[in-house]
Amino acid sequence: MLRERYVIAGIGHTAFGKLPGRDTLSLNVEACRHALADAGIAKEEVDGVFVKVPTSAHQFMYGQKVAEALGVMPRMGGAWDQGGAANITLVTMAIGAIEAGQCDVALVCYADNPRSGNRAVYARPRGDDAAYGWLSTAAGYAMIQRRYVHEHGIGAEALGAVALASRRHGADNPHAQLRKPLTMEQYLQSPWLVEPLRRDDCALVSDGGAALVVTSEARARALGVREAVPVLGFGHGQTSWDVQLRPSLTRTEAARAAQTAFAMAGVDPANVDVAQLYDCFTITVLMTLEDYGFCPRGKAGDFVRGGAIEFGGRLPVNTSGGLLSETGMPGMQLIIEGVRQMRGTARLQVPGARTCLVSNQGGTMHTHSTLLLGS
Amino acid sequence: MLRERYVIAGIGHTAFGKLPGRDTLSLNVEACRHALADAGIAKEEVDGVFVKVPTSAHQFMYGQKVAEALGVMPRMGGAWDQGGAANITLVTMAIGAIEAGQCDVALVCYADNPRSGNRAVYARPRGDDAAYGWLSTAAGYAMIQRRYVHEHGIGAEALGAVALASRRHGADNPHAQLRKPLTMEQYLQSPWLVEPLRRDDCALVSDGGAALVVTSEARARALGVREAVPVLGFGHGQTSWDVQLRPSLTRTEAARAAQTAFAMAGVDPANVDVAQLYDCFTITVLMTLEDYGFCPRGKAGDFVRGGAIEFGGRLPVNTSGGLLSETGMPGMQLIIEGVRQMRGTARLQVPGARTCLVSNQGGTMHTHSTLLLGS
Repeated sequence: MLRERYVIAGIGHTAFGKLPGRDTLSLNVEACRHALADAGIAKEEVDGVFVKVPTSAHQFMYGQKVAEALGVMPRMGGAWDQGGAANITLVTMAIGAIEAGQCDVALVCYADNPRSGNRAVYARPRGDDAAYGWLSTAAGYAMIQRRYVHEHGIGAEALGAVALASRRHGADNPHAQLRKPLTMEQYLQSPWLVEPLRRDDCALVSDGGAALVVTSEARARALGVREAVPVLGFGHGQTSWDVQLRPSLTRTEAARAAQTAFAMAGVDPANVDVAQLYDCFTITVLMTLEDYGFCPRGKAGDFVRGGAIEFGGRLPVNTSGGLLSETGMPGMQLIIEGVRQMRGTARLQVPGARTCLVSNQGGTMHTHSTLLLGS
Repeated sequence: MLRERYVIAGIGHTAFGKLPGRDTLSLNVEACRHALADAGIAKEEVDGVFVKVPTSAHQFMYGQKVAEALGVMPRMGGAWDQGGAANITLVTMAIGAIEAGQCDVALVCYADNPRSGNRAVYARPRGDDAAYGWLSTAAGYAMIQRRYVHEHGIGAEALGAVALASRRHGADNPHAQLRKPLTMEQYLQSPWLVEPLRRDDCALVSDGGAALVVTSEARARALGVREAVPVLGFGHGQTSWDVQLRPSLTRTEAARAAQTAFAMAGVDPANVDVAQLYDCFTITVLMTLEDYGFCPRGKAGDFVRGGAIEFGGRLPVNTSGGLLSETGMPGMQLIIEGVRQMRGTARLQVPGARTCLVSNQGGTMHTHSTLLLGS
């Protein structure tokens, strides 16, 4: 059993937002340095470097270039592309590599600069789906939201409750890109981006970098890491790329990912004290709350309107602001906030939190990864 | 211990060569279908799809697109970039994912079409290295070869012996892209590509696809797979991207990869009966023969000139023709030929072969992966 045998030993990130003149290599390096400093581990110990492919501009053998820019010559490494689900997957691949004796101390990192650099890739439609109006990621989620609303009859206030919670949680976070408070009235007047998606339903577009140090519990102890957070479980799921072939537009692959992750960790949704849920759009949070089993099918609207996802509620969600308020960089910052919650050092610390669920999602709900952290 | 708990259950590939009008998706699908048919496993059993990033044109979330084109909805998958070393690494990642309960039956596949499509990426230099004359992959290897010849004083005939062996081994292979026999005289008159690299020192440029089915030994047995080949061990190594920072131009990362792989398998070079060595250029074979410990440092020239790497010699190398004769597609076909040797079904079957070493290399000796297969 891998449960609790592996840990996240360090976390680090750059500034988030608009960072003109920074390329993804320098952002990755800065984030990795912070993560190593946080772990108290010298870079000479690093022998695995696992890099998420930058969405805006993949370069041939980019993983090797990041290692070089860091000044390390790892045994194992490379670059993985699975959209926004890649970061958790890279943590699990690093664990697999350590388990198989391929490396001992791994950096997992991601940087991108779609705000200052090239963001065109985000809006590039695929032939078949374009015929159905999926002309961008936002257009796809607009349809998904319409379908969900049609099936379950929720009001705009349910989506607004997700946006408001993220913005409240991000309000005191000095790293958050968007700290302006948001009222329900303002949310409801927020302009359409792609109807029915309002501007405040949509993730930020951000430059930045973030990194983790992954190693075994034994190695972390030997290296004197003080705040190692154990990995309890993880899981994955992937659905049809072509939207018209999907069994449902309102179920995510969180359900399959959760099944694997909860079984591995030996916990169930009732044991989860805090969650970092991929909030590329507010509708995603509603659907994944259901798919993870935190509330019944079709009832996520009631769940969030009742305050459950707020700090102080039954299941505080995205306690550092999520993609809607902290940074639009997909996924790694959610793991980082999960680590802080499990260390007991989060800005909005959930008292006595012992289990955190982190959710990453790629494409337009194409692929999903789930990580369960313990304290 | 992972040793012998995982197997390669199926192998498949497309035609190799010039395949105009075929995109990489259709090549991947064809190769995967052949591999599943070879294993006797229905595609409904597949719940992991691990794809090598096509060097000539990476697309966002390409791994998911391959799964979609195959008509499977795996739990886990994505695309990995580590240059020519990626294929073996993907096998090891699939094993790690199965070990961690993330999937049970994985496809590992790779397709590219640099011959008919875009091969520009192969010749794109990196800023720093271009100043040293590394204006293409071939130019980099030309310098490496010069340095090796300078250090060890080998003659052109040693490099020729590698080319001749590959061409001889590929001669009767109906899948080989280049089956024309080659004499030493012809080799020595072969035109310079980048001096001192002769045309016949250089890998082919090929369109094609190749795939493997990876699963546990137990699952393969339950599915009735008849010719599953056990994975004995694997290893990785990665050196500096910037050439001027490397400790040596004539040592490859095969040495580090071998250390991990041999220890895991509990075998040493003397136990290896047949090898599939990445032969992007003839000089690579000489260096990796030394780094794997098949012959002493600086003595690979004597080793190959004495016929050791020929079919019937001490260590037959690239028994289906390698990158020099079968196909320039980096790496997967070497694993496939390794599987055939361990099944006892190779065209040039090494009698009684029980252990095969397969070597994959990425970039200009930047990264290395090693796989040990048993019978």
